[in-house]
Amino acid sequence: MKDSSKKTTWKMRLHEIIYEADTKEGKLFDVVLLIAIIASILLVMLESVDSFDEKHHKALYVGEWIITILFSIEYILRIISIKKPSKYIFSFYGIIDLLSTIPIYLSFIFVGSQGLVALRALRLLRIFRILKLARYIGASNKLMLALKASRAKIAVFLFFVLIVCIILGTVMYMVEGAENGFTNIPKSIYWAIVTLTTVGFGDIAPQTPLGQLIASVIMILGYSIIAIPTGIVSSEMTKTTSKEDHNTQSCPNCLKENHKEKAVFCYNCGSILNP
Amino acid sequence: MKDSSKKTTWKMRLHEIIYEADTKEGKLFDVVLLIAIIASILLVMLESVDSFDEKHHKALYVGEWIITILFSIEYILRIISIKKPSKYIFSFYGIIDLLSTIPIYLSFIFVGSQGLVALRALRLLRIFRILKLARYIGASNKLMLALKASRAKIAVFLFFVLIVCIILGTVMYMVEGAENGFTNIPKSIYWAIVTLTTVGFGDIAPQTPLGQLIASVIMILGYSIIAIPTGIVSSEMTKTTSKEDHNTQSCPNCLKENHKEKAVFCYNCGSILNP
Amino acid sequence: MKDSSKKTTWKMRLHEIIYEADTKEGKLFDVVLLIAIIASILLVMLESVDSFDEKHHKALYVGEWIITILFSIEYILRIISIKKPSKYIFSFYGIIDLLSTIPIYLSFIFVGSQGLVALRALRLLRIFRILKLARYIGASNKLMLALKASRAKIAVFLFFVLIVCIILGTVMYMVEGAENGFTNIPKSIYWAIVTLTTVGFGDIAPQTPLGQLIASVIMILGYSIIAIPTGIVSSEMTKTTSKEDHNTQSCPNCLKENHKEKAVFCYNCGSILNP
Amino acid sequence: MKDSSKKTTWKMRLHEIIYEADTKEGKLFDVVLLIAIIASILLVMLESVDSFDEKHHKALYVGEWIITILFSIEYILRIISIKKPSKYIFSFYGIIDLLSTIPIYLSFIFVGSQGLVALRALRLLRIFRILKLARYIGASNKLMLALKASRAKIAVFLFFVLIVCIILGTVMYMVEGAENGFTNIPKSIYWAIVTLTTVGFGDIAPQTPLGQLIASVIMILGYSIIAIPTGIVSSEMTKTTSKEDHNTQSCPNCLKENHKEKAVFCYNCGSILNP
Repeated sequence: MKDSSKKTTWKMRLHEIIYEADTKEGKLFDVVLLIAIIASILLVMLESVDSFDEKHHKALYVGEWIITILFSIEYILRIISIKKPSKYIFSFYGIIDLLSTIPIYLSFIFVGSQGLVALRALRLLRIFRILKLARYIGASNKLMLALKASRAKIAVFLFFVLIVCIILGTVMYMVEGAENGFTNIPKSIYWAIVTLTTVGFGDIAPQTPLGQLIASVIMILGYSIIAIPTGIVSSEMTKTTSKEDHNTQSCPNCLKENHKEKAVFCYNCGSILNP
Repeated sequence: MKDSSKKTTWKMRLHEIIYEADTKEGKLFDVVLLIAIIASILLVMLESVDSFDEKHHKALYVGEWIITILFSIEYILRIISIKKPSKYIFSFYGIIDLLSTIPIYLSFIFVGSQGLVALRALRLLRIFRILKLARYIGASNKLMLALKASRAKIAVFLFFVLIVCIILGTVMYMVEGAENGFTNIPKSIYWAIVTLTTVGFGDIAPQTPLGQLIASVIMILGYSIIAIPTGIVSSEMTKTTSKEDHNTQSCPNCLKENHKEKAVFCYNCGSILNP
Repeated sequence: MKDSSKKTTWKMRLHEIIYEADTKEGKLFDVVLLIAIIASILLVMLESVDSFDEKHHKALYVGEWIITILFSIEYILRIISIKKPSKYIFSFYGIIDLLSTIPIYLSFIFVGSQGLVALRALRLLRIFRILKLARYIGASNKLMLALKASRAKIAVFLFFVLIVCIILGTVMYMVEGAENGFTNIPKSIYWAIVTLTTVGFGDIAPQTPLGQLIASVIMILGYSIIAIPTGIVSSEMTKTTSKEDHNTQSCPNCLKENHKEKAVFCYNCGSILNP
Repeated sequence: MKDSSKKTTWKMRLHEIIYEADTKEGKLFDVVLLIAIIASILLVMLESVDSFDEKHHKALYVGEWIITILFSIEYILRIISIKKPSKYIFSFYGIIDLLSTIPIYLSFIFVGSQGLVALRALRLLRIFRILKLARYIGASNKLMLALKASRAKIAVFLFFVLIVCIILGTVMYMVEGAENGFTNIPKSIYWAIVTLTTVGFGDIAPQTPLGQLIASVIMILGYSIIAIPTGIVSSEMTKTTSKEDHNTQSCPNCLKENHKEKAVFCYNCGSILNP
């Protein structure tokens, strides 16, 4: 029994280090993990730069293995230290953690047997390790609340943008035609999106006067309707902000509402508020 | 009489299915229509991609006829099931529905007799079928209200943008001249709009130092005045939002206004509010 | 004396037609003027399109003279019908009206005697006729009030943008150098403005990795700080909007403030408010 | 003792002129400094324009020395006139003032001994003299307060933007590949930033249909999420604005809070508020 209790304590301590950041060791674990993630992303980036890869191929290879082993240990420790491993394994972060370690092992297995393309795609999957960073943000902040509250309106807005781009893209295809770069409707719609969102690559640009007139309309439209998502989020955030300053209880004496968050007495009649 | 009543019931049922979405059949009708619209848009797009059209021309042709017949049936059913057909026929959606079916029939009639250009334009009109989707949004949402309320201000803003673009476009035509791509005033105004709206294609770009100085002014102006439509919509939406939290009735006892939406008692004197 | 009174009446009537829009004739005058302004702007534009000018040179020339004579008559009538002509002549609109007529007369005088460049610039000055349209907007609308109220803050913002562009432009000149298009500091600052304002022509683009890194910083900076002018105007407009719904008087009985604009009774105690 | 007092007075007077702007001499000092800073920035810019530098090299050289000597005198006077020189020397403005004078002296020493590159970089450091202008803004304005209050949220937003750009950049590298300009991951991430921030240089643009589809998603994403920083700053500024209209005191009689800034009587019960 003593041994079992010891084991539990050991597991609990590990849990504290890995899943919390209150203790000294917990903070150290977080910092090491953070550095490993960033180093890993840098490795993937540098590997894709041919001139760098040629010079330092070995160093990159070794670094990759060190990080993979680190992440593998982290993954195993997370499974061991939690009471219900299945809950972690099938959670968002559990899947991300698994995907952060597997590709390199798979690429080791498939070397030689399969083509380079699949291998390369597999190795690039490592970039999703950056999602491990999401753990450090926390999902319940006010920003997300405001976005969630305005989800429906933003969907309507995006739908409206899409309809406008499809219609105007087709019109531009009619007006400009293939000889000016608008080779087909999907490409014309792509151009309409590039223009409406005020990106404006310039790889395709209208050449005829009528095309330039329609383009002007699209641009001014895009320049104006950007106000819509902004207005939605602004008003939603102002609402969230002003709501959090007031509570919803009413005074037991005078029925007055909208008391400050920390009010003890009713601001109107002075009677004590219900806690 | 019995037959007539039966007929009416049959019509009413059809009306329910087509114009409402509460029953099972009504929902099914909506889903089928939605799929037909999206499929139709995809057909128009794919038809314009030459490499795809060459391979699958027959499939596209058959698909187009299936959708056209579907839409024709829908159009006829809508006319039959409504009490006053003229009201539907001349409504916005009635015209859209008609335009969604006619082009393909017309193109069938005109084949051979007229040129390809008119035919092509006619066939591309089918893209407006996407407006059939507008039925699913509903026009009375808050977004539209905020936009309608700020219509006058946005018109003044667009008018201001246009004046600025006309003046600055002409100045750039004077400064840069035809040798740097500013071949005439309409084109220079087009360039001014491209720049002010921060799109910046780069097909025309100022080359002289003075031209680049004026371009800088236009860009900073465009970057700053985007705040205006945004500010208008934001303040309008904040207003709409704060209004909807309060009702407009006044307390029968103390005349106090601005009661919360769900208030039963007056928040000031406690007397019961009129329902 | 009778004659003088008659004359005054005639002048007053003219004043009413020209400066006001309440009478039938006043409205007609406004509409004719509006059409003349727009026609004039179109003439200037079309004149600059070489292919159009070659074909219809005579028509453009005649049209120009008709409009110039119309504007000349308008200018003279405005001076005659006003009590203090000097007040009009030196006002903003007086100067615009003068500049709308003079260039064409001057160009008539200077033909042959001077070079084409001065002449062309003179003729293009006619584009400022569009400012005659400003009369129809009115300067005292809420938009202008919000902009005026946030003038100081916007100036600080623009000053900040300029400092950032000067420093980052110089840094880019150091990093990229003349071989990548950053030939001198003014041009690099121009590029920094193009990038920060998210216009992005692409006529100059960073080629070195370090340059692209700094460009990324500029772009994200520009993408984020656009929130500042927007935030300023939004909050200023929200303030203006909420202020206008309430007046500043207090109830003579209960001293309560913030009454609705049209309130007759105090919303709190029901006593009559001071008018 | 008299002499010492005289000296102190002389120092105090100098302090008043240099550090304050209330006296006539203080204002004059500020104006001269302002002109010197702007002239200095113009000199650095013009020096970089080869065609101008060749013609007026001597004038630029002389102008540079005049300004450097002026700034050196200013720096010495600032040290002399302050009680604790060390406090000034190690302050932000102290360091800026030192950096505004040193480069030119150093460049004088190093001429011939070292390469041109270091010298050029040194001379360009003079552009940071523009930061001397920051003295005239003042750091405690409302804009800065709103930005400081929303610092944490903006950091989360930028972090989110970075993660999105890294992932989408890598995906584009996979999809488009080196043959379409996406030569390596860092460059693809640079492109993703260019696109998401709606800058859109167009030096790199997607060529494959799938690449253009992903680019469309990035653009619409960038077009929509610009609402987030704007919403944050707007709501923060609205909050700051509405707070400043109310004071924080409570009525001594009825405990009511949120009195208007200039209220004398309680707006609820009419008792006199504490001053």
